[in-house]
This record gives sequence, structure tokens and C-alpha cells, in this order.
Amino acid sequence: MGNKVKTAISPTREEDYPMWYQEVVKASEMAEKSSVRGCMVIRPWGYTLWENMVAILDAEFKETGVKNAYFPLFIPLSYLEKEAEHVEGFAKECAVVTHHKLEQGPNGGLVPAGELAEPLIVRPTSETIIGESMSRWVSSYRDLPVLINQWANVVRWEMRTRIFLRTSEFLWQEGHTAHATEEEARQRTSMMLDVYTKFVEECLAMPVVKGRKSESERFPGAVDTTCIEAMMQDKKALQAGTSHFLGQNFAKGSDIRFQDADGKDQFAWTTSWGVSTRMIGGMIMTHGDDDGVIMPPRVAPAHVVLLPIFRNDEEKKDVMEYVNSLAGELRQILYHDRKIVVEIDERDTGGARGWEWIKKGIPVRAEIGPKDVEKNAVFAARRDRTPKEKSSIARSDFINGMVEMLDEIQATLFKRAKDFKDSNTHQIDDKNKFYDFYKSKEGIHGGFVMAHWCESLDCEAKIKEDLSVTIRCIPFDSPEESGKCIYCGGKSQKRVLFAKAY
Amino acid sequence: MGNKVKTAISPTREEDYPMWYQEVVKASEMAEKSSVRGCMVIRPWGYTLWENMVAILDAEFKETGVKNAYFPLFIPLSYLEKEAEHVEGFAKECAVVTHHKLEQGPNGGLVPAGELAEPLIVRPTSETIIGESMSRWVSSYRDLPVLINQWANVVRWEMRTRIFLRTSEFLWQEGHTAHATEEEARQRTSMMLDVYTKFVEECLAMPVVKGRKSESERFPGAVDTTCIEAMMQDKKALQAGTSHFLGQNFAKGSDIRFQDADGKDQFAWTTSWGVSTRMIGGMIMTHGDDDGVIMPPRVAPAHVVLLPIFRNDEEKKDVMEYVNSLAGELRQILYHDRKIVVEIDERDTGGARGWEWIKKGIPVRAEIGPKDVEKNAVFAARRDRTPKEKSSIARSDFINGMVEMLDEIQATLFKRAKDFKDSNTHQIDDKNKFYDFYKSKEGIHGGFVMAHWCESLDCEAKIKEDLSVTIRCIPFDSPEESGKCIYCGGKSQKRVLFAKAY
Ligand SMILES: [Zn+2]
Ligand SMILES: [Zn+2]
Repeated sequence: MGNKVKTAISPTREEDYPMWYQEVVKASEMAEKSSVRGCMVIRPWGYTLWENMVAILDAEFKETGVKNAYFPLFIPLSYLEKEAEHVEGFAKECAVVTHHKLEQGPNGGLVPAGELAEPLIVRPTSETIIGESMSRWVSSYRDLPVLINQWANVVRWEMRTRIFLRTSEFLWQEGHTAHATEEEARQRTSMMLDVYTKFVEECLAMPVVKGRKSESERFPGAVDTTCIEAMMQDKKALQAGTSHFLGQNFAKGSDIRFQDADGKDQFAWTTSWGVSTRMIGGMIMTHGDDDGVIMPPRVAPAHVVLLPIFRNDEEKKDVMEYVNSLAGELRQILYHDRKIVVEIDERDTGGARGWEWIKKGIPVRAEIGPKDVEKNAVFAARRDRTPKEKSSIARSDFINGMVEMLDEIQATLFKRAKDFKDSNTHQIDDKNKFYDFYKSKEGIHGGFVMAHWCESLDCEAKIKEDLSVTIRCIPFDSPEESGKCIYCGGKSQKRVLFAKAY
Repeated sequence: MGNKVKTAISPTREEDYPMWYQEVVKASEMAEKSSVRGCMVIRPWGYTLWENMVAILDAEFKETGVKNAYFPLFIPLSYLEKEAEHVEGFAKECAVVTHHKLEQGPNGGLVPAGELAEPLIVRPTSETIIGESMSRWVSSYRDLPVLINQWANVVRWEMRTRIFLRTSEFLWQEGHTAHATEEEARQRTSMMLDVYTKFVEECLAMPVVKGRKSESERFPGAVDTTCIEAMMQDKKALQAGTSHFLGQNFAKGSDIRFQDADGKDQFAWTTSWGVSTRMIGGMIMTHGDDDGVIMPPRVAPAHVVLLPIFRNDEEKKDVMEYVNSLAGELRQILYHDRKIVVEIDERDTGGARGWEWIKKGIPVRAEIGPKDVEKNAVFAARRDRTPKEKSSIARSDFINGMVEMLDEIQATLFKRAKDFKDSNTHQIDDKNKFYDFYKSKEGIHGGFVMAHWCESLDCEAKIKEDLSVTIRCIPFDSPEESGKCIYCGGKSQKRVLFAKAY
């Protein structure tokens, strides 16, 4: 106890990880629960992060020829009925609109009125309605490919919610493409997974394992579901993005047909791919420490906060002049296509002020008092180091070294997360050891295990039942290697990635 | 008949303006009706336009210190009940969610299940929920101002819908700010109206009249509603943006209180302001002609389309090489902070191809065949001129003159719209003339009339009843001038703007 450093967030990650997560989000002012069950209010600090993520991803999508469109919030019930018929794991938890007006009730309150002939569902995805549109837009091979993306809110009713990780309403993008050939659709599937991988690793500083889902974890209707899986600090896996190759299944369901160059009628080959605000939860759980959120500079809502210190109006004048000119210079600097964002916090709230910015995870803090002005310096700290590590830096070095410092922080976060993932990824070849690993209290959730699997649904299901451990993916870089299934000892040619998951 | 030029859109504006609008939207592939009553599918050509509009406005908002946030899609019924109590013109047409799941029904279909204890409303605005959040966020003068904006979808049930102009679901932004003083809130109200004015005039090329609403046209709960009004080609007015000064009314309703510097408890002063996808409808109706949409270059989804022409593979090779290199050069050019967007349309659909781009309203078209390659030229046309006006331009002139050409088109559109508005705005001082003006068939909807008004609600209501003509605004630049009310002859100090309106 005596040596324990007091941290800004209580409980710590070790004491209670789920509660730590809640507290970190709250303390960062990124988002909060709303009065509507399961829905969140995303506050400016969280929403600006999302905007930065969207801007980068959106530009990458467009670079590959994708264009954005917008589809209705509501889906007719009959569309889902059609889907429910042929989609097994069809989710039935959704918001149902049954009336289109409010009337004065007998007790003075408002009551629903104007019952709809057909109930409407608030979109859990826009898949069906996009399919219906594509079937109208496509008639010839000349109309292909169709490369559409939508950024929107979707709703899936959740009973137990956690901000960003699982909420009834969330923000996401869903891409849908239709192609004339299987090859082109397969290329698109992997192209978009690559876009996600690059973004998550380079911008969110989250190392991921790239692979293919097992049949039982596959998206309903998909021929192939590919994904990227990240490791949280409680050693559980979080899926950070998926890209599906749907073969001709979806086109058959939605009647997306075209005449090929020879005049022959064909079904299109389609893909879909998406990421959501859930990524923000993953980013927080990857980098956050016991003092709060740590924002990777590439997506941080702001890069630098300047904290002026003064005791009287005279000091204030000098300090603020210095601070404003410093901010002005920093804001001219380009950091990976975005101008450096500088906050100036002149609230007179004492020491609490600095801690607020630590909890928000801003990459760089700089205190500036009369002495710093005199020395033409700043007293700076980096969020990837401990709160006490501060040092005086000459003004010009601070400005000229800013891009490098931010890149260093970004690299540190990635390295730290990668080391954590790598040191918590194990090869296990013995069933007892595998079971012990996931049952031991010490490891909480164990970590990632690369183990052999015979591809039997049954073995996979048993492991899930016994340990709540699932196959997260069959990694693309898992080498061909003869081995024995970790559950039944049957023949296996490849190790797959097992983990507990969010 | 003999001299009538065949146009791409039928009917023409003169023949049937509302039908012309529908056909123009359809032919442009900007948006279409969806299978969900009252909701539209915004296709890439329309959505990219919206993205461009959003990008410019959003940057302007941020320049003034506003930050974006996101609030829940759903509003608890009780919030609206509270509002309905004290807001007179409270709109009751809304989508009501009463259930949170679907179950297999007795006949095999899906039926709503899991009835909610309290129905939820799909937000018609987020006003109430933003007010509730602000009341939690604000406690001291140090927390002020709060400057929040949200880009989102909202739903107001509509029975008769027209794409972009009136749809059940639409996209918009709503800004909400809270301030410590009345003066600051009033400044913000006019600052945001100025942002809208600048955007609508400079980017959408739509001239507007800026002013204040009369009491009866004011936003419920507002102390002051300011607005910008544009004239459509049928001479009706369309409100292109509003900015409200809400005094302390909204803060009282939502309990947004703060301790001032002297420790005294005060209600905040608030504003709200918004624009929506309705602006797109206004833009189409301002500039469109009988050949379709005309996109102002500043917001156009693309600036230039290159139309390669070839008869065989050999020609194709040469032409495409030329076209691709030309596109590459054009795409390096910055036009008002945005790189020039170039489309290449190599579909072999003959003459129909060029007409499609005319109907889409792309500012510049350029045909390129083997002869143009030989001459190192392009055969170019501008959308602000007639379809037949095409001319050969040297490649280098085309590239070097592109920014100027786009600016010219932008200026032409604005001037044309301004001349139209000015020549259809009249001063009328005689009641009979006023009535004749709006009753005459010739003028369809008459136009704008600047007339005196005694400020009586009664005179205003009578005119509305008789003619469906309303006071669009009391223009800020309307000079003090003694006159007689156009309806009752009573004293008046100012002319106000009358018109029929969308
Ligand atoms: Zn096995
Ligand atoms: Zn009067």
C-alpha cells in the first residue's frame, strides 16, 4: 500500500476491469448514458474522435472508388419477414414503430395514435433496403460494379449495455458492393479488410490478427467472413472490423441480376463490410491506463493543451500573449494531413485542470507560467509517460519537435499494445493445459491461444460451452502445419486463434 | 411549336412546375422515393452534394468555436408531454416506437412483441434531450458558453411528401448554444444567420432576403426567429435557414442554470439554428432548367466529366491515355479548398451519355475523340450555357482556365437567380393591386411583394386566409419609412416581405 501510486481512476484495471472502463469513459467526458435506455450521448470529446476516425476511413473508402449514399431509417416489417425466412441467426431485437402520431390522452398526457397498417422497424442494418435499391439500379454489366457506403445510426435493442461497446443505438458504416465476377468481389472483400487493418493499426495504434471466421462464427448468409481481432488489456478479444464475401447469396435474395456482355442473365457477386463506434471502446481498452484514456495522436480530438498559469492580471497578460502566439504557430503545423489541434484551458481550477486533461488522454500537455515565458520555454508532459514526468523544453524545440513527438507517442502506444498482445498469445497443444489456461484465475481471461483444430463444429461448440472460449479467427498468416485438434485430437493442418471475446 | 427547342426534361418548368421538379430530381439520379412511405434514398450524386455542403458549413461552425456531439435517436414520450404543455404549436406527427422485438406470429409472419413501458418517439428534433444534457453540464459561469451542434437524421411524419422539400425523414443540423448573457446569445443568433447567408449565397449561389419572422411565424418558444428567404423559379419563397434567439425561455423549460461570478443563480440565455436537406430542393428549384439540375461548382459532386470517344481499340488506347493524363492534371488543381473532381465516363452509350451529365448538372463537360487528341484540345461545354454551345479549347487553356471557368459559372448562376428575384420583387401600396397581383394567373405565385404592415396579427391572418400569402420576414435592410398597412390602412413604419411559400 505504502508504495502504491495514487491514480486518477478508481478502481484500477487490475482491481475491476469492467468498472475501470466505465469510470474511464465517464472521467474523459467522451460519452455518457442518456435518459433513453441503452442509448448514449456522445459528447464533443468523444464525437470529435469519431469524426477524425470517419474522415480517415471515408477518404480511404473513396480512394478505392466507393461513394456514399443514404438509405431510409425505417425498414418495412415485410422486408425482415423475407429475411427471417432464409436467415437463421436473424436478430429479432429491434425498435418497432407502430404509430405515426401522438394524441391527447384521457388523462391529459400524450398517447400513440394513427396506427400504421404495416409496422416499421428502425434499421438494425440497411442491408435489405440497399439490396432492393441495387436490384433496381443494376440491369447491365455496364452498371457494375456498384460501390456504395453508408455512414448512419442503427438500432439493435440491448438489455445490458456498455457505452461504445454495446449500445442499442450506435453509429457505423456499412459498405455494400456488387460485382460482375466472383474474383472481383473476393478482391473487394480483402481490399476493405486491408483498409480496416491499416486504419486500426496505424491510426488507432491497435495491433490486430487478420483472418477468416469459422463457419459457426460467420455472418449469416456470407460465404466467407473475414475480420480483424484485437486484444484488450483484460486479454479478451474484440472484433475491430469485418468484411464479408457474400457470393451470389445476397444477390439471389435481393434479385440483383445483370445482363453480361454476351447478353446472358447473371446474379451479381456481392460484399459487405463495416466498423462502428464499438472501435472507440476497443481503442480505450487497448491504451487506457489507471489515469484514464490515452488518445493516439493520429485520431486524437486535440493534440496539445496549453495550461497558462498566472496569479494576477499583469502576469495573465504576458502569459496569455505567449500562449496565444505559441498556439498560433502550432496550429500552422500539419500532422498527417490534419493541422495540429491546440486547446487553451485558462480556467482557474488549480491542479484539477491538469488531471482533467490527463483523464481525457490528450497526447501533450504544456504548462506555461511567468518563468516559462521568461525562459522562452514550456513545461511539457506526454500522455504516454507517467503524470509526474514533465520537463522544460525551449519554445522553438517544442514547436519544431511537435510532429516527431506525436509520432513517437503513436509508436509507443502501438509497441506497448503489440508487446502486450504478443506476450499474451501462446501456442498450446495439450487439452488439459488449454483448459487450465482458461480456467486459471490468475490470467483472468487467459489471453490468445493458437491451437490446432480439426474443423469440426462439434469440437468448437464444446469448447465454447465449457470455457466460453471461441475461435476468433483462422489467421491468414497461420502456417500450414500438421497437428492434432486441441479438443478431440483429430487431424489438423493449421492453428486457429482461440480467446474469450467481447 | 416549330421553333420550340426540345428539352431533356418534360414537362418544362412553365408547363408544370411541380411535375418538372419531380422529373428533374429523378433524371439527375440524386435521390428517389423508397419503399418506405415518405422516406427517400439519397443516391451518390445527391449525397455527395450533401457531403460537400456539410463539409463547408461544418468548418464554418467550428471556426466560431462550435463542437459537434451526438444525442439519442429516441426521445421518451414524457419529454414531449412536458414540451406539449407549454409549447402551443407542438407538432404531434411523429414516429412512435412501442415495441422492442419481433416474434413469430400465429400465421408465420413476424409481429411486434416486448411492449415498452413508455413509448419512445423518433426525434423530430433533439431539442429536449440537448436541453436536459446542458442542464447537467452547466453549473458555473465557467462552463459557459456551451456551443453544440449535431448533424443527424430526424423524423416528422408527413402525408404528402416531395423529395428533399418535405420528407418524413430528413438530414439536418441543429445547433444549440447557452450563454451567460443576453448580449452574447443575441450575437450568436446573428452570427449563425450570417454563416448561413454566406454559405447559401456564395456556395449555393442563391440570393436571399435576411430578416426577422413576425410573431405568428416565429418558432414556438423563441423570443426572436431570424431567417433567410430565397425565391424559387415559380416565384414562391423557400426558407433556407433559421436562427433563433430563445431568451431564457428554453433554459427555464430545461432548467439550465449557472452560478455567475458573484455566486448568484441565473438562467442561461440560449440560441438554436438549423438547416436541412431541404436546402437541396431549394438549390434545384433556383438553378435548374428544362434540361435538368444545374450544380453550382462550389458544392457540385463533381466539376468536370470527360467523355472519351473512340470507334476501335486502337483509338481507345490513344484517347484513354490522353483522357487519363488530363484527368490527372485537373485533379491536382485546388478549387476553393477542394481538389477538382473529375469523372471519366467511358460507357459506350452514345448520345445518351452526354445528356445524362447535362441532367445531372455537372458544371463542365468535355468530349475527347481522336481528332481532339491530335489537336491537343478538348471539345468543351458549360452547364450554364445551352447544350449545343460547345467549343474546342486547347488542352493547356482548359487546364489553366478551369478555376476561372468554374468561378464564372458560379457567378452566372448567382447573377441569374438574383436578377430573377429582383425583377420579381415589387413594392405595392394598394390593397386591390396587392390582391390582383396574387390572384392573377399570369404570375402563377406572384412573386415577392414589399408592402407596409401595421403589425396586427389580424391583418396578417386575413391576408393568409384570402391569398395563402404570408409574411416571410421583416427584412433587416427594410428602411424606416412611414406608410399604410396594405390590409387595413393603419400606420406602418416598415415594409415587410410577403410571398407564397414552400
Ligand atoms: Zn476436433
Ligand atoms: Zn393592418
